[in-house]
Amino acid sequence: MDIITPRTLSGFVQLLPADQMRFNAMLDRIRATYELYGFTPLDTPVIESAEILLAKGGGETEKQIYRFTKGDADLALRFDLTVPLAKYVAENYGRLPFPFRRYQIGKVYRGERAQRGRFREFYQCDADIIGDGSLSVINEAETVSVIYAAFTSLGLTGFRIHFNNRKVLSGFFEFLGIADKSAAVMQTIDKLDKIGADKARELLVSDAGIPAETAEEICAFVTAEAPLELLERLRGKNETLDLGIAELNAVAAHLSGFGVPEQNYVIDLKIARGLDYYTGTVFETFIDGHPEIGSVCSGGRYDDLAGYYIKRKLPGVGISIGLSRLFYVLQEQGFINPELPCAPCDLLILPMTDDFSAAVGLASELRRAGIRTSIYAEDKKFRAKMSYADGIGVRYAAILGEDEIAAGQVTVRDMRSGQQTTASAALIVKGLLAALAAQKDIPPLRGI
Amino acid sequence: MDIITPRTLSGFVQLLPADQMRFNAMLDRIRATYELYGFTPLDTPVIESAEILLAKGGGETEKQIYRFTKGDADLALRFDLTVPLAKYVAENYGRLPFPFRRYQIGKVYRGERAQRGRFREFYQCDADIIGDGSLSVINEAETVSVIYAAFTSLGLTGFRIHFNNRKVLSGFFEFLGIADKSAAVMQTIDKLDKIGADKARELLVSDAGIPAETAEEICAFVTAEAPLELLERLRGKNETLDLGIAELNAVAAHLSGFGVPEQNYVIDLKIARGLDYYTGTVFETFIDGHPEIGSVCSGGRYDDLAGYYIKRKLPGVGISIGLSRLFYVLQEQGFINPELPCAPCDLLILPMTDDFSAAVGLASELRRAGIRTSIYAEDKKFRAKMSYADGIGVRYAAILGEDEIAAGQVTVRDMRSGQQTTASAALIVKGLLAALAAQKDIPPLRGI
Repeated sequence: MDIITPRTLSGFVQLLPADQMRFNAMLDRIRATYELYGFTPLDTPVIESAEILLAKGGGETEKQIYRFTKGDADLALRFDLTVPLAKYVAENYGRLPFPFRRYQIGKVYRGERAQRGRFREFYQCDADIIGDGSLSVINEAETVSVIYAAFTSLGLTGFRIHFNNRKVLSGFFEFLGIADKSAAVMQTIDKLDKIGADKARELLVSDAGIPAETAEEICAFVTAEAPLELLERLRGKNETLDLGIAELNAVAAHLSGFGVPEQNYVIDLKIARGLDYYTGTVFETFIDGHPEIGSVCSGGRYDDLAGYYIKRKLPGVGISIGLSRLFYVLQEQGFINPELPCAPCDLLILPMTDDFSAAVGLASELRRAGIRTSIYAEDKKFRAKMSYADGIGVRYAAILGEDEIAAGQVTVRDMRSGQQTTASAALIVKGLLAALAAQKDIPPLRGI
Repeated sequence: MDIITPRTLSGFVQLLPADQMRFNAMLDRIRATYELYGFTPLDTPVIESAEILLAKGGGETEKQIYRFTKGDADLALRFDLTVPLAKYVAENYGRLPFPFRRYQIGKVYRGERAQRGRFREFYQCDADIIGDGSLSVINEAETVSVIYAAFTSLGLTGFRIHFNNRKVLSGFFEFLGIADKSAAVMQTIDKLDKIGADKARELLVSDAGIPAETAEEICAFVTAEAPLELLERLRGKNETLDLGIAELNAVAAHLSGFGVPEQNYVIDLKIARGLDYYTGTVFETFIDGHPEIGSVCSGGRYDDLAGYYIKRKLPGVGISIGLSRLFYVLQEQGFINPELPCAPCDLLILPMTDDFSAAVGLASELRRAGIRTSIYAEDKKFRAKMSYADGIGVRYAAILGEDEIAAGQVTVRDMRSGQQTTASAALIVKGLLAALAAQKDIPPLRGI
């Protein structure tokens, strides 16, 4: 038979077993956090009608999308989880209670040029709260705390959520008389940390057409050391600005109540988020000492989720974690916790007799106790059996020879220390459950 | 703005929140079972090169597949999880320990004519054990026990795993001198339960070209009441048959050790599984009293997983649960447990004051205790707040008014009984944790 060389497409992720376990450990904790905050899980089709997915249309999206026909149907693969959410909410409007809090963790598709850490198929982990007509600003503070809780659950401690309010920026621009250039200015400010204040000032003048003096003012404003005090002094100058200041204060005021420590957040007037979409609180999350990674979780408040599908104002606030890229960069930076167990089972049974009855019975007893168990049933030498145990990275191996079976006992070897214990199955179960309970809290990332 | 009517493609599943929770509860338990048995999770791309996916080629598959080009690339969406597994194992052969036990739960795509309970995008939950060169028959018995454990974990009791061994059938056909017609005969036998013995006998003669007397013998053989005794009498007549009998006995002998009760399995010589692919144990699973649902979990032993991709004999044994269809039919038949909690949170906080500090503090306390909590922060009348609680189906609502806040207490209402309790947050947490612990074991299906 001719052999076709097996390969995986460029830009598509396919992990080896231990890495898959590490990835899943992260995904599971993000999922648990979203559920703890009362978000309901949602799953939408990967394939949608192209007309639906591209309702907003235009731009980079249209070029990157996987689009194809099947029979008469013009189809496309989802490129984010926000458009499917908008469609879902509009389609089921009468059947959903609002605010509608949903999370969705799933793969999305973008036919970008594949490069290091950029994927064509990647996981997004989104959580959004959608209101009907209005939505309390409390949800914006809560969303910041979801980010904190999610990253803390991963084991990360050194990270900071930078947040701002788009109304503060828009209001300030109105006050400066440059409201018509707001979009271009926001895009430049968004890049300020990357390009530096001097370059930003230059671009504001050359590209956005802002007078030099005003550009100076903008840069001084967004880089102010004590933004809340600065804003206090500006109160009363502009209505939008006042509204933004009030919202920024409301979010800041509730963060400690939501359990977010001061060292994990900062008001940062440079956060603009390029998209027109956002209208209130906006946030980005950075890992301490790693600005080059960029934001690992972003999002914000928007006023019109589903205007393309329904004549209802559905404001919302949401966050998104690009998990495939996050996993890739964290792994590259050595953030993955080497202590995280990533074997497919907790214990591997190595039968040393031809009769497997004792091994099968032991496996059943361990599984009834909730211990993930495998039997190595192949007819191989002891050395090969031990090498398999090493290969799958299992911590405990149960050796079941004639002597053990005759004595109604089991010998368990700690593959890490080499230490062996011989005891009854009941005692072994007890010991393992204690050891596994201690392992359960090992986070997927190192606490740095 | 023009409105595009939001819609979901025919044949694609998109569930409402409560149904999604029910679906996820089933998926989570299947996943937990696979992990308990030491299968490692795997995730492969949804898109593969068409050449890879269609290496085997031909037949129905090719017609149903979603295939398209992107740039120069000829791409296709996976139509099962077995071909991607074969590719994965061949691609990573040198890096995997064998036997390689993996499970994969994911969506697959088939552009079939959409009909009730048949989907174009659906979940498969697969678990396979792949050997290198050889694989002990113990794995076949264990796989039957995985099916038992998975369905039991779902809450189902009335189901039965029917199993057979392809060598028994092939050996018997060799013995009858009709080995050359084996494939056609197997296909007819596979349908026997549906079409009846008379019709099967007729087809064996008319379509498979089997002499009437032999057809009679075949039907008598596969419908024998005491198959193991019948097989005992045939021992020594044919080598393949003897091997099959030995394997069938080995599997049967270990099922009780693996914890499968006698009422949940039966040796059924009519189980043939049409595919050429299978070479040893084959099984199908039926729900008592519901033959019309068909098999809810099938699989078997095969000898050559990845011959298209690698020059290595990689035998395996696997099972597959078509979860989307299973969920659909179980729901239609009323098998879903109405007691299964499917609210997005355990408790909803209804603040009755303008100041949200107490509500935010309470939410944080509850979440720290692991209680899934939401705050209803919208400025609505009490009635609207209670109606929201009803709408999301939450069991407990915490009412936080001025009196409660002043007294440092919380009023919790059981939305089902209408009973209200006022107590300190600490006591409320304690009471909720006890109530939730009791809920945790509610299975997604009724025990019928």
